Amino acid sequence: MASAKAMGALALLVVMASLSSGTSAVGRQLKFNAKRGEFKILQVADMHFGDGKRTACLDVLPRQASSCSDLNTTSFVRRLILAEKPNLIVFTGDNIFGFDASDAVKSMNQAFGPAVNSGIPWAAVLGNHDQESTLSREGVMTHIVGMKNTLSQLNPGGAHVVDGFGNYNLEVHGAEFSRMENKSVLNLYMLDSGDYSTVPSIPGYGWIKPSQQLWFQHTSARLQKIYSTQPEGQKGAAPGLAYFHIPLPEHASFDPTNSTGVRQEGISSATVNSGFFTTLVAAGDVKAVFTGHDHLNDFCGELSGIHLCYAGGFGYHAYGKAGWSRRARVVVASLEKTQKGSWGTVKSIKTWKRLDDKKLSLIDSQVLWSKSSTNKQRIL
Amino acid sequence: MASAKAMGALALLVVMASLSSGTSAVGRQLKFNAKRGEFKILQVADMHFGDGKRTACLDVLPRQASSCSDLNTTSFVRRLILAEKPNLIVFTGDNIFGFDASDAVKSMNQAFGPAVNSGIPWAAVLGNHDQESTLSREGVMTHIVGMKNTLSQLNPGGAHVVDGFGNYNLEVHGAEFSRMENKSVLNLYMLDSGDYSTVPSIPGYGWIKPSQQLWFQHTSARLQKIYSTQPEGQKGAAPGLAYFHIPLPEHASFDPTNSTGVRQEGISSATVNSGFFTTLVAAGDVKAVFTGHDHLNDFCGELSGIHLCYAGGFGYHAYGKAGWSRRARVVVASLEKTQKGSWGTVKSIKTWKRLDDKKLSLIDSQVLWSKSSTNKQRIL
Repeated sequence: MASAKAMGALALLVVMASLSSGTSAVGRQLKFNAKRGEFKILQVADMHFGDGKRTACLDVLPRQASSCSDLNTTSFVRRLILAEKPNLIVFTGDNIFGFDASDAVKSMNQAFGPAVNSGIPWAAVLGNHDQESTLSREGVMTHIVGMKNTLSQLNPGGAHVVDGFGNYNLEVHGAEFSRMENKSVLNLYMLDSGDYSTVPSIPGYGWIKPSQQLWFQHTSARLQKIYSTQPEGQKGAAPGLAYFHIPLPEHASFDPTNSTGVRQEGISSATVNSGFFTTLVAAGDVKAVFTGHDHLNDFCGELSGIHLCYAGGFGYHAYGKAGWSRRARVVVASLEKTQKGSWGTVKSIKTWKRLDDKKLSLIDSQVLWSKSSTNKQRIL
Repeated sequence: MASAKAMGALALLVVMASLSSGTSAVGRQLKFNAKRGEFKILQVADMHFGDGKRTACLDVLPRQASSCSDLNTTSFVRRLILAEKPNLIVFTGDNIFGFDASDAVKSMNQAFGPAVNSGIPWAAVLGNHDQESTLSREGVMTHIVGMKNTLSQLNPGGAHVVDGFGNYNLEVHGAEFSRMENKSVLNLYMLDSGDYSTVPSIPGYGWIKPSQQLWFQHTSARLQKIYSTQPEGQKGAAPGLAYFHIPLPEHASFDPTNSTGVRQEGISSATVNSGFFTTLVAAGDVKAVFTGHDHLNDFCGELSGIHLCYAGGFGYHAYGKAGWSRRARVVVASLEKTQKGSWGTVKSIKTWKRLDDKKLSLIDSQVLWSKSSTNKQRIL
């Protein structure tokens, strides 16, 4: 018995040792724009890419249908990149709609193509449909990690250390030539919210598991320690943003009276509460969570100091609502000016959405977080 | 930055390596009774011990008040031990009511005295009041671990590996001289459900953290693997029981129509959902959870295949209801007879409560789990 226990313990040791081996080196260090003191993230949710030109659109107006395909999705990504010039593009899952993608690699190469070709760093996480083509979830994420210009990572310390594939964090340093240029002032957490429950007594979608939550908790604590430590030790925590596919049960807390944007369908979270919202609130640094999955919801609502935001449906080979434009979410974090005219830490985080209409209409602009409001709350 | 990351990673490695170093050797191996093929657990919840004879009773009838003190609690423990002759006594927290215990060590020695002196193995976890006297939570648990005849443990691998103090598991082997005598056929999980939230934006009681849930998950998986492996590899998982102090938010799922026992007050769980119920359901082996904390609730209700049971208030220096007897919960697991007339694995788990009246009235007897019902469910 002792030896079996020891063997189990050894397996756990190996797993946990791997957790600590550090993520693979990121080729390019994300940093705030030195001119405007901004960092802009374009979120693309639910592209649902199939086989490109051959794959028809769903839920578009009759006059749009005949000429509509996955290429409309591609075109929308391109136009957004040109219009917004983001510093990072984040794809929050269901990047491909596996059942209608006859070759996962080809479908992904085409779907992520505009991001790859833009030269802008990009990152992706998995949805519940990405593994339905010719590759497993691990295979899909492994392919993504190998693509050009991506900062995506398979997992901390390897494939099987934490549940899922594509759990990693990205650090955004302060502006070049500022005192914060070597310090992360904005932290991004990317998580695999799974596909479907594998527990017979729990129906429905997957959830973020204890191993992922512990990884998040340790990562958040480590980043908060670094942020508050010399050189350039700061008070409080650098704001964090979390990106994953499936909304949390807590997304159901909102209606038009306490949110910005629309809720046109139910909240397709897991049928159980995984506790990740509690873990987020307890960690204290994450100010907003960005998901996709429910294409007809595009709202942001705040609960316990954390904004829970949908991006709204993006892809044309995804269910939607004819006449209701496909859309994307943009987030901009802005640095505060220091007394010496340089850039300091993050002052505010704003968001808006862009519609796929002629002028890429900008809607629902709102402030998600600002340093002063936090201070004010603290004083109160 | 890389070195800071490495340092954080190293810290995590140390923590996780410790997690795997195994729990300290248990002096006495728990095993099923070879004569009756049974293992009986007496749960004592919320003794709320103070200073013994000097500490008055709360919420008793006027005629009882003058002669009532902590000694009535002691007497009830003694009578139960004599009447039930359990194989294990489990104290599920608020063992002492710290504010009214002028010396934590003395109070604990007196509170656990009947268990210590009985010679029966006993185990304890912490409630939210145990640390309010002269010792911290770590100090209280450390003292308990050092007491006679206890199987209590501080934590897997040391004090600070997982959150809280007093997270450990106990394995109950099959009957002596049976083929299961070297295999755990009943697994007990003891957890520290915390005291109070330390997160400013989350009011109220504590909860079971990701680190504890991951420890539970790994322990459950390890035990399930051993159970199914030769020698004497079994199908399925050995049933598990979890003991901790604070109920889960899911305890609020019950009313008189779907539970046995009474619900006379609100469910004082944490105000947030920690996901531990999901983790329990996903692990698959735990058939029942036993808590205390809400003294006026003593019901059991089943949700997703797991019974959530209160023990009911036990201690006389704890709030209660005059005229409503203090009570305790008993659980008995029974082995099945093999064709050769020996004992096999667990066949059923039953529970009842005992009241502190003249005849220690036995009430609310019910079956919590039976192997046949599980098989039946599987066939259906």
